[in-house]
Amino acid sequence: MSFHEIKERISVETALRIIYSRIAKVGVEEVSVGDSLGRIVPCDITSNIDVPHFVRSAMDGYAVVAKDTFGCTQQKPAKLEVYGECRVGEMPKTRVSSGRAVEVATGSQLPGGADAVVKVENTRRNGNALMVFFPVTPRENVSEIGEDVKKGEVVIKSGQAVRPQDISVLLACGIMKINVAKRPTAAVIATGNELVEPGGKLIPGKVFNVNSNTLSAYVSLYGGEPADLGIVGDSFKELRSALESGMKYDLVVFSGGTSVGKMDMLPDVVSSIGEILFRGISMRPGGPTAFGLVQGKPVFLLPGFPVASMVVFETLVGPTIRKMMGARHLDPRGEVIAILGNRIASTIGRRDYVRVRLEQAADGATVAYPVRTSGSGIISSMTKADGLIEIPEDSEGMEKGSKVTVKLFPE
Amino acid sequence: MSFHEIKERISVETALRIIYSRIAKVGVEEVSVGDSLGRIVPCDITSNIDVPHFVRSAMDGYAVVAKDTFGCTQQKPAKLEVYGECRVGEMPKTRVSSGRAVEVATGSQLPGGADAVVKVENTRRNGNALMVFFPVTPRENVSEIGEDVKKGEVVIKSGQAVRPQDISVLLACGIMKINVAKRPTAAVIATGNELVEPGGKLIPGKVFNVNSNTLSAYVSLYGGEPADLGIVGDSFKELRSALESGMKYDLVVFSGGTSVGKMDMLPDVVSSIGEILFRGISMRPGGPTAFGLVQGKPVFLLPGFPVASMVVFETLVGPTIRKMMGARHLDPRGEVIAILGNRIASTIGRRDYVRVRLEQAADGATVAYPVRTSGSGIISSMTKADGLIEIPEDSEGMEKGSKVTVKLFPE
Repeated sequence: MSFHEIKERISVETALRIIYSRIAKVGVEEVSVGDSLGRIVPCDITSNIDVPHFVRSAMDGYAVVAKDTFGCTQQKPAKLEVYGECRVGEMPKTRVSSGRAVEVATGSQLPGGADAVVKVENTRRNGNALMVFFPVTPRENVSEIGEDVKKGEVVIKSGQAVRPQDISVLLACGIMKINVAKRPTAAVIATGNELVEPGGKLIPGKVFNVNSNTLSAYVSLYGGEPADLGIVGDSFKELRSALESGMKYDLVVFSGGTSVGKMDMLPDVVSSIGEILFRGISMRPGGPTAFGLVQGKPVFLLPGFPVASMVVFETLVGPTIRKMMGARHLDPRGEVIAILGNRIASTIGRRDYVRVRLEQAADGATVAYPVRTSGSGIISSMTKADGLIEIPEDSEGMEKGSKVTVKLFPE
Repeated sequence: MSFHEIKERISVETALRIIYSRIAKVGVEEVSVGDSLGRIVPCDITSNIDVPHFVRSAMDGYAVVAKDTFGCTQQKPAKLEVYGECRVGEMPKTRVSSGRAVEVATGSQLPGGADAVVKVENTRRNGNALMVFFPVTPRENVSEIGEDVKKGEVVIKSGQAVRPQDISVLLACGIMKINVAKRPTAAVIATGNELVEPGGKLIPGKVFNVNSNTLSAYVSLYGGEPADLGIVGDSFKELRSALESGMKYDLVVFSGGTSVGKMDMLPDVVSSIGEILFRGISMRPGGPTAFGLVQGKPVFLLPGFPVASMVVFETLVGPTIRKMMGARHLDPRGEVIAILGNRIASTIGRRDYVRVRLEQAADGATVAYPVRTSGSGIISSMTKADGLIEIPEDSEGMEKGSKVTVKLFPE
């Protein structure tokens, strides 16, 4: 057996704790708010102004002195005189005083002297004579200064990803540029003498390299910037040279070269210029995963089997990328609660990640069916599935009919 | 009152039915599989090859003739002789016959003559002498040709968005380029004399234009390509000229200019060179929304209030963009089931969209609290919320403690 036989596997939780304790945050960069969709905000953002910054009408209707309408009814309307109009976007030309009204629209500045707005549907107008059929209380149908955002208020909290509505509120506060976490750059390196670039001739014994593009896609999906460094053969020299090239990036993601086979020398390569922090995790698939640091940069050694590398990406690498950006939610995947459609067996002491396909039952319940598979070599088990169920370390499996949480594959 | 008073509002369902019946699909374009993340596949994609295309070992161990191991035990191991090794990525140099074994690793091509693989942990080796302690059945620990994907099998179904695992399976099938739906291009036009570009001086009566960037972000999020055509004033001539500029794109999204105020002439502008298909929807916020067709292209007239325009975007415009791409799932938003934390009142005959914030209760339940708001002018009600609850048309509201479905805001 190889020198590198995996002796002691650590739990997924321990693996994450080790990783998180050893990684550094990436820096920040300034972007236009309009270009900030999806970016992570590293610090609270505060408004320097009140929104709105003037008192405005919240309705189409008439700006009035509320007292003038007190006690009015359908039978006994209040009678006012309309003194002009204040359009949206214009400065009021007229003040309102008792007995008078100014026509306003939703968003119009409230003319001086007025303290409420009567809705147009509660009035009837004839020339400049206005009848009001329902009373309003002072400040009714009026948007006050700072009602939306108060000066000094935090509008985006640190660690949040910018959504369209966040762009909206930032611009409403007159904020045009914000600091966001840089996208961590990730070198993606596929290893293995069996790999050839896809699309060529089929050669017995060789397989197409799928991991480079797949892991690169995952890096993008989790907010990083992938750099595909291609395929590297199973030689110490080539692997070490690839690792050194990876040092130009914020993290390095290798796939292949972590199992106990003789040709798996990648952990040695990492140790030669850095350190391996763990090797082997109590999880399936993905058990042979290793993690190290080289020049302070995280280096992930993922299994070469596509399914295993994808599951480990979602479990460890993606959350690490988000942690490096200071994101509050490290796991962006959606979840659904489902009823298990078939029994799942598992092993105590290991966390199993079971691919499941979701179906809607006749009674409306969501049912999760494990995708039948003979191992982590079967890529189509991931494409036929909608998400993963995690079977915890202390469980021997789950019975048909159990309530399960399905982590949905990110899209 | 204006000529354009809204007389009859249609339901959200009817609005969607009208829109979907009148829009055309966008064309397709060829992209590299590595660049296809998130794109919509308009037609089923089939594999032209079997994956794997050769029989391979599913384990690290020894390729054997299964019959040689029948009946072996820990006490009475089968004794075989090792004749070399077949590494991953290499062609087998040796055949296996009865009494012989060839060392293999996971992914190695299975040497001729072998019909099973014995796991390395179930053996002991001394030089070329191999002891096998557990029997294997024929084909055990062997990946068969086409086990992952069979030649002719559909690997991606039409209407699906490409995920990382789909990239993986496509490349495994040797597929390097695929057809995807083009991203619909959307002209985004903000209207209103009250609008000024954000970041300038605060002027009483004027407000910063937030809708252009917000709706552009939404267009991107739903898979389209936004073109920000800026702010247009409330004049027939300017609006018509903007609409004509919008005809260079696949759809047009106006915000502002749809309520019953006198200055809202946008529906007239659309009618002058196309047709208005509906005006007014029984929903809140977003009721004054209108929709038309000009030169066969969908034209959305959204309310100017940011919250209303966002809710209508998620309800109508986003799904339309996805429908134009042929997406299977028109609504990409995640959902969670929650317990309502406060009573919500609603009106029969209208669908209400209530912004809610989610909290985890002590017992682990997810509780949805309506975000207190005084109208759709309050942008921060969207940023403080996590999603929307839809109160259906036939409901007068929902009691505290009800089970509700929250549509999560897209990120």
